[in-house]
Amino acid sequence: MINIRRLSLDEAKILLEGAENKAKELGIPVSVAVVDEEGYLIAFHRMDEARLIGMETAINKAFTSAVSKRPTRMYSEIALPGKPAYGIQNSFNGKFTTLRGGLPIEVDGRVVGAIGVGGAPSGEQDEEIARFALEHLKKKSGLNVNTSI
Amino acid sequence: MINIRRLSLDEAKILLEGAENKAKELGIPVSVAVVDEEGYLIAFHRMDEARLIGMETAINKAFTSAVSKRPTRMYSEIALPGKPAYGIQNSFNGKFTTLRGGLPIEVDGRVVGAIGVGGAPSGEQDEEIARFALEHLKKKSGLNVNTSI
Amino acid sequence: MINIRRLSLDEAKILLEGAENKAKELGIPVSVAVVDEEGYLIAFHRMDEARLIGMETAINKAFTSAVSKRPTRMYSEIALPGKPAYGIQNSFNGKFTTLRGGLPIEVDGRVVGAIGVGGAPSGEQDEEIARFALEHLKKKSGLNVNTSI
Amino acid sequence: MINIRRLSLDEAKILLEGAENKAKELGIPVSVAVVDEEGYLIAFHRMDEARLIGMETAINKAFTSAVSKRPTRMYSEIALPGKPAYGIQNSFNGKFTTLRGGLPIEVDGRVVGAIGVGGAPSGEQDEEIARFALEHLKKKSGLNVNTSI
Repeated sequence: MINIRRLSLDEAKILLEGAENKAKELGIPVSVAVVDEEGYLIAFHRMDEARLIGMETAINKAFTSAVSKRPTRMYSEIALPGKPAYGIQNSFNGKFTTLRGGLPIEVDGRVVGAIGVGGAPSGEQDEEIARFALEHLKKKSGLNVNTSI
Repeated sequence: MINIRRLSLDEAKILLEGAENKAKELGIPVSVAVVDEEGYLIAFHRMDEARLIGMETAINKAFTSAVSKRPTRMYSEIALPGKPAYGIQNSFNGKFTTLRGGLPIEVDGRVVGAIGVGGAPSGEQDEEIARFALEHLKKKSGLNVNTSI
Repeated sequence: MINIRRLSLDEAKILLEGAENKAKELGIPVSVAVVDEEGYLIAFHRMDEARLIGMETAINKAFTSAVSKRPTRMYSEIALPGKPAYGIQNSFNGKFTTLRGGLPIEVDGRVVGAIGVGGAPSGEQDEEIARFALEHLKKKSGLNVNTSI
Repeated sequence: MINIRRLSLDEAKILLEGAENKAKELGIPVSVAVVDEEGYLIAFHRMDEARLIGMETAINKAFTSAVSKRPTRMYSEIALPGKPAYGIQNSFNGKFTTLRGGLPIEVDGRVVGAIGVGGAPSGEQDEEIARFALEHLKKKSGLNVNTSI
């Protein structure tokens, strides 16, 4: 038997709350997806007036970070033509994404889920909101979350 | 110009809260999806220990009730072989479902979104939880929600 | 955090060994898939001369038993037209199957994975082989496996 | 009539054993897929703690090497924009991959199957593990396997 730790719904709600707080502060309505450590959706919120594209990309970003255990930012670089992971974006019928804004949620050094944010004008802003959510989870839950991933 | 009324994220959260309260009371972990009046996801929660099949079916039930403006219960009957809507379950690449547990959210006689619940042992229980969520929204928001749909 | 127990690769290999032993005894070459508790493939073997259809169905049966926490035998009955789960076979793009031969692997009352067998002349034989694999795991590992599921 | 030689399940198990031995030596949990000469799965193992992305890519790499009779390494170069095979990665609905780590299994100059490894930090490591598996098969089975492909 392998023992796995997985985010609970209550912890996912804290992440959503953190992301929404940051998004409101920035005045950017986004979609936020939280998935478990194998990429299945636990919780999702789409803010009023958010662009629909962010709904699709938030879910895909979270999925990608869960199955790869990597920030999607990494694939925005290494999946370019000529780079080592070129072609990986075709995996899982295109659900694997090279867009920034997905972060694995690492607690005590183990990936327990992932978060994806979509719909901000730039991927950097999506990632900023996702990272703020990790910090919010760390603060509110006391869990040893890796916020500099 | 057409004026559309659509559920807000805050109202969707009230629906999720109602569904989770009822699911906890029944001791049945489920997934709950709330979509807008065009079937796109606004909010989703998967409770701890819920069966994964409910994640897929909750989203499909909500989608089906939004695009058809009908409870999915109706299609569990009229989409049987030989009945008038037989074949409709192939619509939208199989996303249109005949499983009970999806209800349109009708406010002042207009469909403004839909809710789908999945993962309970029976479709009747899924629908019971979805209906409780409508009642919870009606009570908490003061909106004129049709709870006997 | 939720604590999850999941089959290891070594345990999956014991399941495959058990299934192959039984299939050889019956003189029926089959495919056998073992998935984790969320339906992702851990191990798969296709025996020499096995029909290719069994490769596809073994994987889908294991997936279905994992995400539903039920034997697929149940869906061969309740997903018939007019029965309560009619339509569920469209879930997950048709990967959810109503074919017999998939069993959840329940240890200490929790589903930790699933097994699917495909390619035998009948679904009853597929299930017989799958069940023998559960018994083999129980005997060899000492785990408290539910073999009468 | 055409006579085809194809890997047996027992030979596929030797390949998996070789790959796992090497992966353990390197301390890298991976997924390993072995397919027949037409790209259909014979055997698959996902090691404990392996990243899920490797499950998908291992299968796709093995498939690609079988149907093309080439190491996938070749496509990581000739399928780049402007190169002769650009666009081939869209074949088979994206299952044809440009990621390194897939090798055809050539015995007596004929392709009898293929192996794919996925989930290591780099494609070079995936290929190293796949090549070790070929050497292991050659040594253990006495077959005339091309290990410098």
